[in-house]
Amino acid sequence: MPDDSFHVFDTTLRDGAQREGVNLTVADKLAVAKLLDEFGVRFIEGGWPGANPKDTEFFQRAARELTLEHAQLSAFGATRRAGVRAADDPQVAALRDSGAPVVTLVAKSDVRHVERALRTTGEENLAMIADTVAHLCEHGRRVFLDCEHFFDGYVHDPEYALSVVRAAAGAGADVVVLCDTNGGMLPADVTRIVGEVGAATGARLGIHAQDDTGCAVANTLAAVDAGATHVQCTANGYGERVGNANLFTVVGALALKQGRDVLPEGCLPRMTRVSQAVAEIVNISPATHQPYVGVSAFAHKAGLHASAIKVDPDLYQHIDPVLVGNDMRMLVSDMAGRASIELKAKELGFDLSGDRELLGRLVDRVKELELSGYSFEAADASLELLVREELGSPVRYFDTESWRVIAERRGAGGGQGASSEATVKLEVKGERVIATAEGNGPVNALDRALRSAMEGVYTALAGLELTDYKVRILEGNSGTGAVTRILVTFGDGRGEWTTVGVGENVIDASWIALKDAMAYGLLRQGYPQN
Amino acid sequence: MPDDSFHVFDTTLRDGAQREGVNLTVADKLAVAKLLDEFGVRFIEGGWPGANPKDTEFFQRAARELTLEHAQLSAFGATRRAGVRAADDPQVAALRDSGAPVVTLVAKSDVRHVERALRTTGEENLAMIADTVAHLCEHGRRVFLDCEHFFDGYVHDPEYALSVVRAAAGAGADVVVLCDTNGGMLPADVTRIVGEVGAATGARLGIHAQDDTGCAVANTLAAVDAGATHVQCTANGYGERVGNANLFTVVGALALKQGRDVLPEGCLPRMTRVSQAVAEIVNISPATHQPYVGVSAFAHKAGLHASAIKVDPDLYQHIDPVLVGNDMRMLVSDMAGRASIELKAKELGFDLSGDRELLGRLVDRVKELELSGYSFEAADASLELLVREELGSPVRYFDTESWRVIAERRGAGGGQGASSEATVKLEVKGERVIATAEGNGPVNALDRALRSAMEGVYTALAGLELTDYKVRILEGNSGTGAVTRILVTFGDGRGEWTTVGVGENVIDASWIALKDAMAYGLLRQGYPQN
Repeated sequence: MPDDSFHVFDTTLRDGAQREGVNLTVADKLAVAKLLDEFGVRFIEGGWPGANPKDTEFFQRAARELTLEHAQLSAFGATRRAGVRAADDPQVAALRDSGAPVVTLVAKSDVRHVERALRTTGEENLAMIADTVAHLCEHGRRVFLDCEHFFDGYVHDPEYALSVVRAAAGAGADVVVLCDTNGGMLPADVTRIVGEVGAATGARLGIHAQDDTGCAVANTLAAVDAGATHVQCTANGYGERVGNANLFTVVGALALKQGRDVLPEGCLPRMTRVSQAVAEIVNISPATHQPYVGVSAFAHKAGLHASAIKVDPDLYQHIDPVLVGNDMRMLVSDMAGRASIELKAKELGFDLSGDRELLGRLVDRVKELELSGYSFEAADASLELLVREELGSPVRYFDTESWRVIAERRGAGGGQGASSEATVKLEVKGERVIATAEGNGPVNALDRALRSAMEGVYTALAGLELTDYKVRILEGNSGTGAVTRILVTFGDGRGEWTTVGVGENVIDASWIALKDAMAYGLLRQGYPQN
Repeated sequence: MPDDSFHVFDTTLRDGAQREGVNLTVADKLAVAKLLDEFGVRFIEGGWPGANPKDTEFFQRAARELTLEHAQLSAFGATRRAGVRAADDPQVAALRDSGAPVVTLVAKSDVRHVERALRTTGEENLAMIADTVAHLCEHGRRVFLDCEHFFDGYVHDPEYALSVVRAAAGAGADVVVLCDTNGGMLPADVTRIVGEVGAATGARLGIHAQDDTGCAVANTLAAVDAGATHVQCTANGYGERVGNANLFTVVGALALKQGRDVLPEGCLPRMTRVSQAVAEIVNISPATHQPYVGVSAFAHKAGLHASAIKVDPDLYQHIDPVLVGNDMRMLVSDMAGRASIELKAKELGFDLSGDRELLGRLVDRVKELELSGYSFEAADASLELLVREELGSPVRYFDTESWRVIAERRGAGGGQGASSEATVKLEVKGERVIATAEGNGPVNALDRALRSAMEGVYTALAGLELTDYKVRILEGNSGTGAVTRILVTFGDGRGEWTTVGVGENVIDASWIALKDAMAYGLLRQGYPQN
């Protein structure tokens, strides 16, 4: 059991999902949870089972599919409704049934919200809190209580706000979380109020800050300064309106500025990778200017700085970027390319360290392709095919004469009924092959046609499975004429590999990635080449 | 002459221009200066004349072309070089010659930087400061002094850092600005240090904060709490690495949270417009999630909130968005209940409050569509079409008999050479129309075919432009058989609207979004229906 004295509590999957434009599938949520666990957070709030079918499913699948090393899952939900026993409230039952060892309840703590939004009395609200907390504790759950609108409520009526904290702690809530739900607070007030609440109640306090004043991180730190030992954050600060306190920025300050051991050892350098991977899954371009993890976070442009950085990089950086898995950009962009390509070649059994000319040519080729929209970071297999080509031994299992896709639909569209058909003409082992296949979309049809053309010769193709297909439009402003980047991932039961294709035509870009993924799969099987 | 007791000092044109990817022309700088003046900042730092030809030209042209209502221009430059009199230093002369009434000098205040980067002695650095400040004062300039790396320097050697402040103030600098150049500070330390420096020197102090800990705004406010009366900020927080303290967020807190009159009357509501206009000029997409001014800053998604917002919007907003020229917006998502859809419909001009049955039907329809992959929060136009359909007046400008796309390529792929052709068969105003068009991709071909089929009847179609096209694969694990969500944005010069389409077939999903976007565009034009 990890140290319980300080909680990094992540709510990306619940409060972060409120961000405009974010719409996570259950598979997305499972993938994000896995990353957050790798980063070493102590709690992962998975969603609101019972209120949202997707969240109910998330907890079901998490119980079966997710093995967490560091984190515990927490289910989010409201206190029981007015006038019903907690034991009889189906929403409370859904929290119990989620199987999550921790339940985070939300309760009103601003008496105006109790009366105007919840439409009950202050007294009944306190009873709802105590009853629900006690009920869940009796059923063996660890309970945290989020006090919604705490700060506004405390400013308006401190006594009532304090009575909420006391009701929760008295009924068995382990942590009472003070929420700046509207995000309007500034740090000095947070420090003062958290200090007063701690002194008045003796409860273990947490902080949940929204970023509407641009101070969510500072407010979180202000609460910790005043004694809070539980911080609620979201990856990349995703959240409703402006967003929540950014998990990575908060952890960066706590760990690197204040020397607190808030993560398990070895986790901090995963920060940049986890941040970017979560952004990919959520399908929001990673924020280039995000503290600690952005690609620009340690990029130096000022001429004044540039000359001095050569003397001593520490003079111009607030931390060593390596600590958070990032890099100083000015020196790196060239060298990183060179180093990773050299490493890749070494993996393949070619030592390029002696051949600066070849290495330079490869770096130039990669740069040129990346300029046109390629990205090899996630496409190892494409990079390997490129390296082999530059080394003079390109991978060739088939030659393409042509391909064609016909997609059509009768009627207005929507639901079932569109059809897709692809025809490929290849040369495989000296034979011309023509194959046509149907699919549920144009790329699926191409995939099937390719297999159908070659399965007689390369029987292992039947065992290759397309496991992921990602589309990214590279620059938003030229509409359907924009450049598309496709990432295709295949697996063969022993491992997975990813290829990349780029083009104005989404099908053409998909074709490039598809055919390379198949060629790479055949290479893995050890087939002799065409 | 405006009140001089508190300075909002903008450095977008100097420090903000250090942001990666920003490259301002002189015309850009003039346009930004005009906007900043409209917003009511007290000083605009225009650049470094003498060091940068563009900046020299900016001050020349500003003197001729720019009429400022609120702001004074400030020229930025370094103290004289070691071993030269200020009067003989050509860089100092360039500052005088710029014609700017204010000069902001930068000086080293961390003795390590003096010795290792500047390569002179601490004593000579103090002489450089005093000499340059005094020289410019003698020539009638108002002088501010930026203490570079002040906080790191103060932590390392407080006495030397204080001697810099004393040298500058003693020689006539009106404000000594403490800079967190590396951006590594946290608010509590800033409050403490600024307080100590004020007490020790009695100088008028300013603050310049970088955002590397995500605390630039909070650090700026912390300095003001401790007595600083001059804040240096940039529009939208542009700046080197992560960026600078965001002008709008800082002013929002000072004016709306602390009630300080930091802007001339009537300027505050220009905030959102100025922020977005600067982003346009700088050519960076406006940050949707920026405090106060982002389009998401007052957007509400959670169903929990939506039901309460109906009761009282103030309960769920930290300020009235109108104060900063922004607006409240409701988002519809699977989390939202009845209340959000009712509010959304109201926003679109339909009062559904009286018809609970219809509202229930709409909620069910939205939930069902969202379960199948639709997302309406970014697709207002699709939601409106849905509402109109449920209200019994569906929007119909054409009926689709069928569509077909043929995409093909000869050869292996990559680069130019793939072709796409689309054919649509429609009924428009009782006539059967068949049209075929080519495009640089399948969706582009469909777009053109649709227009070609209808342009004769709906001539305004030529003025509709497809401005954005987004693809999202919804479930990562079923490969090319996965469900695709397409968002299409169109504009007609007066506004933009977005539609959504979903399907296993990327072209079919695109078709749904395309045809709905065109129908909605025709509705906006006021055409009678089919």
